[in-house]
Amino acid sequence: MCPVDDASNGVDGHAHTNGHTNGTTNGANAAPETNGFVAVETKQNPHIQTSNPYQPVGDFLSNISRFKIIESTLREGEQFANAYFSTEVKIQIAKALDDFGVDYIELTSPCASEQSRLDCEAICKLGLKAKILTHVRCTMEDARVAVETGVDGVDVVIGTSSYLREHSHGKDMTYIKNAAIEVIKFVKSKGLEIRFSSEDSFRSDLVDLLTLYSAVDKVGVHRVGIADTVGCATPRQVYDLVRTLRGVVSCDIETHFHNDTGCAIANAYVALEAGATHIDTSVIGIGERNGITPLGGLMARMIVADREYVTKKYNLKKLKEIEDLVADNVEINIPFNNYITGFSAFTHKAGIHAKAILNNPSTYEIINPADFGMTRYVHFASRLTGWNAIKSRVEQLGLEMTDAQIKVCTTKIKAMADVRPIAIDDADSIIRTFHGNLHRKEDVPLLPGMTEEEKKLFEMKQAELSGEREKRSLDEAADAQAEVPSGKKTKTGVAA
Amino acid sequence: MCPVDDASNGVDGHAHTNGHTNGTTNGANAAPETNGFVAVETKQNPHIQTSNPYQPVGDFLSNISRFKIIESTLREGEQFANAYFSTEVKIQIAKALDDFGVDYIELTSPCASEQSRLDCEAICKLGLKAKILTHVRCTMEDARVAVETGVDGVDVVIGTSSYLREHSHGKDMTYIKNAAIEVIKFVKSKGLEIRFSSEDSFRSDLVDLLTLYSAVDKVGVHRVGIADTVGCATPRQVYDLVRTLRGVVSCDIETHFHNDTGCAIANAYVALEAGATHIDTSVIGIGERNGITPLGGLMARMIVADREYVTKKYNLKKLKEIEDLVADNVEINIPFNNYITGFSAFTHKAGIHAKAILNNPSTYEIINPADFGMTRYVHFASRLTGWNAIKSRVEQLGLEMTDAQIKVCTTKIKAMADVRPIAIDDADSIIRTFHGNLHRKEDVPLLPGMTEEEKKLFEMKQAELSGEREKRSLDEAADAQAEVPSGKKTKTGVAA
Repeated sequence: MCPVDDASNGVDGHAHTNGHTNGTTNGANAAPETNGFVAVETKQNPHIQTSNPYQPVGDFLSNISRFKIIESTLREGEQFANAYFSTEVKIQIAKALDDFGVDYIELTSPCASEQSRLDCEAICKLGLKAKILTHVRCTMEDARVAVETGVDGVDVVIGTSSYLREHSHGKDMTYIKNAAIEVIKFVKSKGLEIRFSSEDSFRSDLVDLLTLYSAVDKVGVHRVGIADTVGCATPRQVYDLVRTLRGVVSCDIETHFHNDTGCAIANAYVALEAGATHIDTSVIGIGERNGITPLGGLMARMIVADREYVTKKYNLKKLKEIEDLVADNVEINIPFNNYITGFSAFTHKAGIHAKAILNNPSTYEIINPADFGMTRYVHFASRLTGWNAIKSRVEQLGLEMTDAQIKVCTTKIKAMADVRPIAIDDADSIIRTFHGNLHRKEDVPLLPGMTEEEKKLFEMKQAELSGEREKRSLDEAADAQAEVPSGKKTKTGVAA
Repeated sequence: MCPVDDASNGVDGHAHTNGHTNGTTNGANAAPETNGFVAVETKQNPHIQTSNPYQPVGDFLSNISRFKIIESTLREGEQFANAYFSTEVKIQIAKALDDFGVDYIELTSPCASEQSRLDCEAICKLGLKAKILTHVRCTMEDARVAVETGVDGVDVVIGTSSYLREHSHGKDMTYIKNAAIEVIKFVKSKGLEIRFSSEDSFRSDLVDLLTLYSAVDKVGVHRVGIADTVGCATPRQVYDLVRTLRGVVSCDIETHFHNDTGCAIANAYVALEAGATHIDTSVIGIGERNGITPLGGLMARMIVADREYVTKKYNLKKLKEIEDLVADNVEINIPFNNYITGFSAFTHKAGIHAKAILNNPSTYEIINPADFGMTRYVHFASRLTGWNAIKSRVEQLGLEMTDAQIKVCTTKIKAMADVRPIAIDDADSIIRTFHGNLHRKEDVPLLPGMTEEEKKLFEMKQAELSGEREKRSLDEAADAQAEVPSGKKTKTGVAA
């Protein structure tokens, strides 16, 4: 059942089929019967015959293997509490995202401030492969400013929930529809791509929404957008709404999910299954409150669904670099449990799953860390740690040491762990210092700031431990706790 | 469409209907026709007549409003890379979880080590309200040790995927079924609750799984478990599998989701919609790799689905305390974007959404922070910061200061932000130090480690700023960037 190979229908995800082209075909979403299943044919999702007999029935809607990313770190991400990007930083981030291969880069409205306008123009002039979008209110004033910046497309948005309609702009749906049509026609007349989105879509009236989207589709909007602005939507609500919308419009469908209730990645995934074409992301998910679908998290989800599409299209090995760049600028730490790049993402605790993983990684891993330029990490900062775990870490850190040297270093780490709790970083720093000391005349202390008492205890523990044979003790400890003790192949697994 | 009020069917979620009672009714899951919809009746999900005409059709399966939590910080969480809990810490965590109101606490196998066995016994003797479970391999040896510890129930697990069957224990499904039945009958004969789970369920053969679950259901197992051990499952796969299983067994259904691809919370939610009864969680989600469904994240999801059930049943105001306790012990920082308790969860950036939030929080918030003893936080560590934002932070920190004092403090923070980028923590520490200085004879420096140059620049900026009128400048800045500028009610919203 898992992973699903959605790549099997053979559509070339690299084809530039969306946007710019659907003006004349709107309203043409015929629904031919195919083996009893009704399939919607759109520009994004043409009916290509597949030769794979295992193609799941009713899966014509799915865009799992041909989705596009609208990267919004420079718009949604700029609304993150700690984000204040200078022009240079914005350019650095835009270039990094372009290297990564995102399809679109969305920028803060040029109407937000004079600096925003100038930054928008500067990024448009970089000549990136990614299309540049800016995100403005659905008014002619904003649209006029936007089209002058040099962007490839304009993303407009308007509040459609009854709450926003009553307490905010006070306009009815007819007014909204007319305003939208005016703006769409204007932006199209300038030869630019135009998206129309509602705000807080999941608290808006369904009939209002569909009426509005149907109207803008008829005048040739390139994309309509659904936004879960407050992060309340559940996967089945998303699937139902997108699937319904897929039957109403023939243009592309963009989706934007906040993560307040933990569904931002899952909702993006089911939206694609239901026929959405574009997903909004930001680096590490930064945005309003706890943010939106994270770029890295979406990659984790999608590589499991269609490894070929994702690895061919995106430069996954750049992910960590981009995350570090953004994290530094907004002054946050990468969460320990961050998808793919968090310290524990590919970490296995010695003695529990570690041995199985060392034997065959696919036992307990669905993602290959190497696809992201990452390495598997068998946790070792503990008393159970053995020298082969340290050896793998030494290799990860790119240091050269002989096995004998690694064994001495292991003893020191184990002794240190008995003196005080040591974190991942501490162990790394001990390894680096130990390695440095091999080439120094005088030893640098392995951990800074140790008290005299700690030093004494450390020497004692080290003396105790140096008699032990590390490899054997690791293997025994691992065996005792492993799923499948090496000597007892009839035992059954324990960890779920 | 959102939030859905699933509470409307009026079932008392506090009733202790699951476990211990279904032995005689297994196999009795009749499927009466109700208005054309087939509903499954189980102990957990009896057909209670509802008087609400808006009850969604086909929703008989949903346990959104009567789910139970199996808290596994002391089992799955102990497998987290950095987790080494002492006996005292385990007891502290167990008591905290019990205060919170979790239904079950799951402990590491007593067979893992002598200390694990002793800790298991110690926790059983605490007399907690929560039921205590331990998690062991599906063998008679393990089951015998488990039932002697004093636990209320035993969770057994066995690998059923073809991979584990071929490369691990090498046993076929008939052997697995017979082993399971023997263990189940033994544990039941001791008067204890028994759960049977497969491992890596989403990479197991569906027919094998259903055959096995049907067999153990017939001998009276209290719960069957589905585990997404590698974190590959998608919401629609989960819904389909749980719904199918719901039609096959009449016992309770527990689910366990890893978060490698970002769906652990969403999958738990759709599992409940499909008829699952129990969800496994851990505090901050700690576990193998990047962990499982987090307790706090599940609360965020469920409080939006059924606020009444969640607030009545769980002591939500304890959440932050438990998270801090666990985070301290495993030496991690609470991620900036953590559900509910992360620093940005209820933070709104001055000038973007902040003004709308100050006017009416429900505009951009789906969760009320007060339900968790948290407060809304208008971000202020920036040059846009105004004294009313600082005032709200001072109140959050529980400090007493006059408005005049807060204004002086605000000027200092703004001056500091012009000298160097300041983080949330810096701003908090400035406020605390400033507050302390009000009662000290001699001032403590507001930020430690400032260079002479920085001090000079700070004095200069402070002098410049003290002429300004903070409140007005905040309001103007907020107006300029707000969704709905106060003077222009015909404008439409911008942020999605």
